[in-house]
Amino acid sequence: MADQNHGMPAEGRKRVIIEDVRPAVDAGRFAVKRLVQDVVRVNAAIYGDGHDHVAANLLYRHDRDTQWRKVRMQPLGNDEWTGDFVPDVIGLWSFRIEAWVDHFDTWSTDLDKRISFHVETAASSETNASAKDVWLALQTGAQLLTHQSLGASGKDAVLLETYARSFQKLAKSQTLLSQTPVTRELVEVTERNPDLLYATQSDEFPVRADRRRAGYSTWYEFFPRSAGEAGSHGTLRDAAALIPTIAEAGFDVIYLPPIHPIGRAYRKGRNNNVKAAPDEVGSPWAIGNEQGGHTAIAPELGSFADFDAMLRVAESSDVEIALDIAFQCSPDHPWVKSHPDWFLIRPDGSIQYAENPPKKYQDIYPLNFESPDWRNLWEELSEVFLFWVKRGVKIFRVDNPHTKALPFWEWCIGKVQQTNPEVLFLSEAFTRPHLMYGLAKRGFTQSYTYFTWRNTKEELTSYLQELTSEPVCEFFRPNFWPNTPDILPVALQKGGRPAFVQRVILAATLAANYGLYGPAFELMDARPFREGGEEYYDSEKYQLRVWERNHPDSLMPLLITLNTIRKEHSSLQQNNTLRFHETDNPTLICYSKREGEDRILVVVNLDTVNTQSGWTRLDMGALGLSEGDSFECHDLLQSGSYRWSGPRNFVLLDPHVSPAHIFHVRGSDSDNGKVR
Amino acid sequence: MADQNHGMPAEGRKRVIIEDVRPAVDAGRFAVKRLVQDVVRVNAAIYGDGHDHVAANLLYRHDRDTQWRKVRMQPLGNDEWTGDFVPDVIGLWSFRIEAWVDHFDTWSTDLDKRISFHVETAASSETNASAKDVWLALQTGAQLLTHQSLGASGKDAVLLETYARSFQKLAKSQTLLSQTPVTRELVEVTERNPDLLYATQSDEFPVRADRRRAGYSTWYEFFPRSAGEAGSHGTLRDAAALIPTIAEAGFDVIYLPPIHPIGRAYRKGRNNNVKAAPDEVGSPWAIGNEQGGHTAIAPELGSFADFDAMLRVAESSDVEIALDIAFQCSPDHPWVKSHPDWFLIRPDGSIQYAENPPKKYQDIYPLNFESPDWRNLWEELSEVFLFWVKRGVKIFRVDNPHTKALPFWEWCIGKVQQTNPEVLFLSEAFTRPHLMYGLAKRGFTQSYTYFTWRNTKEELTSYLQELTSEPVCEFFRPNFWPNTPDILPVALQKGGRPAFVQRVILAATLAANYGLYGPAFELMDARPFREGGEEYYDSEKYQLRVWERNHPDSLMPLLITLNTIRKEHSSLQQNNTLRFHETDNPTLICYSKREGEDRILVVVNLDTVNTQSGWTRLDMGALGLSEGDSFECHDLLQSGSYRWSGPRNFVLLDPHVSPAHIFHVRGSDSDNGKVR
Repeated sequence: MADQNHGMPAEGRKRVIIEDVRPAVDAGRFAVKRLVQDVVRVNAAIYGDGHDHVAANLLYRHDRDTQWRKVRMQPLGNDEWTGDFVPDVIGLWSFRIEAWVDHFDTWSTDLDKRISFHVETAASSETNASAKDVWLALQTGAQLLTHQSLGASGKDAVLLETYARSFQKLAKSQTLLSQTPVTRELVEVTERNPDLLYATQSDEFPVRADRRRAGYSTWYEFFPRSAGEAGSHGTLRDAAALIPTIAEAGFDVIYLPPIHPIGRAYRKGRNNNVKAAPDEVGSPWAIGNEQGGHTAIAPELGSFADFDAMLRVAESSDVEIALDIAFQCSPDHPWVKSHPDWFLIRPDGSIQYAENPPKKYQDIYPLNFESPDWRNLWEELSEVFLFWVKRGVKIFRVDNPHTKALPFWEWCIGKVQQTNPEVLFLSEAFTRPHLMYGLAKRGFTQSYTYFTWRNTKEELTSYLQELTSEPVCEFFRPNFWPNTPDILPVALQKGGRPAFVQRVILAATLAANYGLYGPAFELMDARPFREGGEEYYDSEKYQLRVWERNHPDSLMPLLITLNTIRKEHSSLQQNNTLRFHETDNPTLICYSKREGEDRILVVVNLDTVNTQSGWTRLDMGALGLSEGDSFECHDLLQSGSYRWSGPRNFVLLDPHVSPAHIFHVRGSDSDNGKVR
Repeated sequence: MADQNHGMPAEGRKRVIIEDVRPAVDAGRFAVKRLVQDVVRVNAAIYGDGHDHVAANLLYRHDRDTQWRKVRMQPLGNDEWTGDFVPDVIGLWSFRIEAWVDHFDTWSTDLDKRISFHVETAASSETNASAKDVWLALQTGAQLLTHQSLGASGKDAVLLETYARSFQKLAKSQTLLSQTPVTRELVEVTERNPDLLYATQSDEFPVRADRRRAGYSTWYEFFPRSAGEAGSHGTLRDAAALIPTIAEAGFDVIYLPPIHPIGRAYRKGRNNNVKAAPDEVGSPWAIGNEQGGHTAIAPELGSFADFDAMLRVAESSDVEIALDIAFQCSPDHPWVKSHPDWFLIRPDGSIQYAENPPKKYQDIYPLNFESPDWRNLWEELSEVFLFWVKRGVKIFRVDNPHTKALPFWEWCIGKVQQTNPEVLFLSEAFTRPHLMYGLAKRGFTQSYTYFTWRNTKEELTSYLQELTSEPVCEFFRPNFWPNTPDILPVALQKGGRPAFVQRVILAATLAANYGLYGPAFELMDARPFREGGEEYYDSEKYQLRVWERNHPDSLMPLLITLNTIRKEHSSLQQNNTLRFHETDNPTLICYSKREGEDRILVVVNLDTVNTQSGWTRLDMGALGLSEGDSFECHDLLQSGSYRWSGPRNFVLLDPHVSPAHIFHVRGSDSDNGKVR
């Protein structure tokens, strides 16, 4: 706020302005997201009045550090400054800037000019005056150094005082100087001991440094209860048995729908039937019964010993188990009895079930975030995460976070990550953009996206440009899913195998984080519950399914190939270098990613029926190439190689053979095979 | 800052998020600039979790108001909300937003659905259940109204309670409803009495509402001392005698270089000669001698009585006098003796003069904003403004504000405007962009710009687009000057009369605020002191000049025409609607401004030598026209009229006749001559 009572500032001599500090989310209100060991490049506009030189430090610290670390910022011209730091452990970091008028540097630059002028005018009538100017300037310099020495200690203080005396001596002895007496040593000691009395301090800006899996991960979701022998209820032991194969396929996060006891009241039958037969298994999202709630395991899935065993298998397979946390309760959940005031009570004394009139979801009680007992509710919910963290779970997929109060998430994620900074949260919100971004700002590590419904070249291009540009790229990490247990997109229902292939190639190459719901995906389950809807027929949400995991048509070989390509090409492990390239065919989308020397160029035919061909118009600069370069495009999907030349190249893709090229771009004329 | 200790918020039930509030400068750190009676349109993203409806108020107040005024905000879709207020007196305003979950509105919408469903299912087996749902909902509604009545008073409280009872009665009597019992009256009383217990409050955002001359003004600068009879030193009385003519020419701000006593030590002679002859007049910017400083008038110009008389002439001519305030001192300034500590003292005890080694400006002592006595310095400088404000001056042109500490300006302008909100400040900073913008953010009402050196179509287009786009347009009001006493741009030196004509047409039509330094401008003084420089030969800064004000070649008739066009066309009195239109000739620049029904379209030939012609490609929408419309272009400079049709029209401009068309766009086919 502008100062309205026009009181003077406490210190009016802080003359340096620090503005437009980046990276920042909402001017520092929320943390910027980075990965540990990433270089965090900080930029700001820093300037003072008049012609005095300014200098600036970037200060940064982990939230457990008691001291700020400092690095000198560098000017880029036109009052733009930059500085880097590397968050070398995971957790919450802060940075800020301090900037000040560098009187010594200003003086030293002026002294150079005075001495040059003196040398130029030697033997002219101005000599005497210009020599006097130098001697007076030396006295001024001595004063500055003496002043700076007061803020220094030890050797530096002595050194500064020594130089001050030598300048005084030069001035007194009226020595004629032909070059500056300012040595590299002196510059360094003054830089080490700046006079910060009137330094301006910027606000603090938070940065969350996550572990690297936050930025590059490959998810596979399946229902443990369908993992058993055909006809029998699968268990965590059955699930564990599948883990090594899934891990070998290149997935590194295995995510399980809720594993808690399932409510009995109003239990849903197969295909969301409002009445379940007595032997039906119910929806895992109707959480809780007399056997426990969010910190219990449904006995039909197994015991905690089974759970721990599953985690050990995962660990030895180098994958992680992600749990689905859905903060809602069945009428049989223990909290309904122990904390009825955590729910909305209706005038007739009953608890309000989930409802979108006239639709009723009587098997689900939403929690009431306006409960008078909200503090205990928040604590209990956060303890659910901490319970599973203690058992070894470090990744959570959070169900419908957009139906819980946003201040709760900011607090809860902050609390969990303060003691467990390795924990990652995936936001399963498919809702309006502000709300999706609002959840990400408040701490969700990764987020589901609209990718699931973005099909055309125009839709994909504009959405990806939004996701990879500021401000979104600073706080929102997309995780692309071609399907989920809730969403069988129309594109997959209608497009056959070419659609499945095309959509997973897009997901795996456009987003460093992607996932899919299997085996429905790789077995190309495309039957909707009803025409025009997105629910699966015989959805696993309500029943067991028997999957022919080794079906010869399975897409698993393609998934293995894609995951291998992602593993071998670091350019696909990040999103920020994504660039779209023009083609002259609206069904051919072309894009590239680049990291260091690794360059991947992808062309996808978005038409799932017809062969399409056209000419690219590559942004050669984005590929690190010159306009006329020729270069090798090695197709990582079909293992062919093409010699391309310049921006214009012909592409032809038959969706029934392969709807895409994933090219590894190698060499060029101008760099003799070495990538620049 | 993110909450680092993860303490809970004081109230966790504030579920509504308010983000991205606009207009704002640096997230509310500085005031947005508007004119009094402007509609201030406030936008924000406002949303909550889940499906509950939200509602929002825009609150606003003048800084002397004790109460906030409120207006309900309206949703634009996708969580974007908008609200307007009109600052109806000048001064500093603030606005903020409060937003809350509107439980009554959510409930009322749900009730509609319940009743519809009940009506649809009448006579079906679901009737009984759906009727019960309605009755239960009525009880919930009664509870909500009773709760809201506690926050209401008087008639509203009674009304809410009455509705609550009637809902209870409907529920108890098991009346079958076929339409909602929620009346317009009830909606209004609930809207008047929202439950703000868990309302989220945004930050406060400042808005400065200036008087209208801040946004539309026409400046004429001249040296009073050259206003006398040829050969004699002009006075304020001579200056006063010129005022009515300048005012009749359509200028409304007459700005005088400093009128204070001029220093004697190191006085500069004509053409900036370091030695002045005894009778030379010196530079008005070397302020102060034994006759006084910044609150004195040089006796050679006259007395305070003369000054007051001049102000009276200005007032009766409906123009304002702007004074030039240059915070620097000659060695003879009273402050040098009374407050030597306001200057930098050199090691030899002398006061540091202005210097850019090896250049010395020994006639000027800069003030030292790191003075230990900075508080008294600030006070004294602010009192200079207040001194002249008390005498009736309401506009100041501030010399070189970028060489004074920026925190000083924020405080000083704030202090002056707090008691005198009608006072306007023009920043004369020609320096780097961040610093120019930084001064504007800190309070300068208007600012000099780079227009003076922007000549090509590309330069003008990109600069004007920057100035009229966010964020710049929110805080920086450009004032375009084709020349100043310090700057005779090369374009004017080389381009002859066509250049003068072209540059002032650009200034007067591109910027709602423009000014010029006369009579040098209208008499086309184009002689530089030295080739390659921008100083005038025989600059008035150092000597008297004799001007032949009624020279037949004077551009004054053109200036009168331009100022009349500006007065008659409100579209030229603002900048925000400026749009550039393409032409196929790089020397033809085409742009338009629009305000309500007034539309001005300008085409300028930027080539000062050759006739140029080409075709326009008008953005018809920006002109309020449809693609195929034909319309009348009435040339306000040459008084001809053209019938144009569609975007493509031929233009030919001979710089020696007139380098520009200023078209008043009238009528169109599709609106039958009425501007839409």
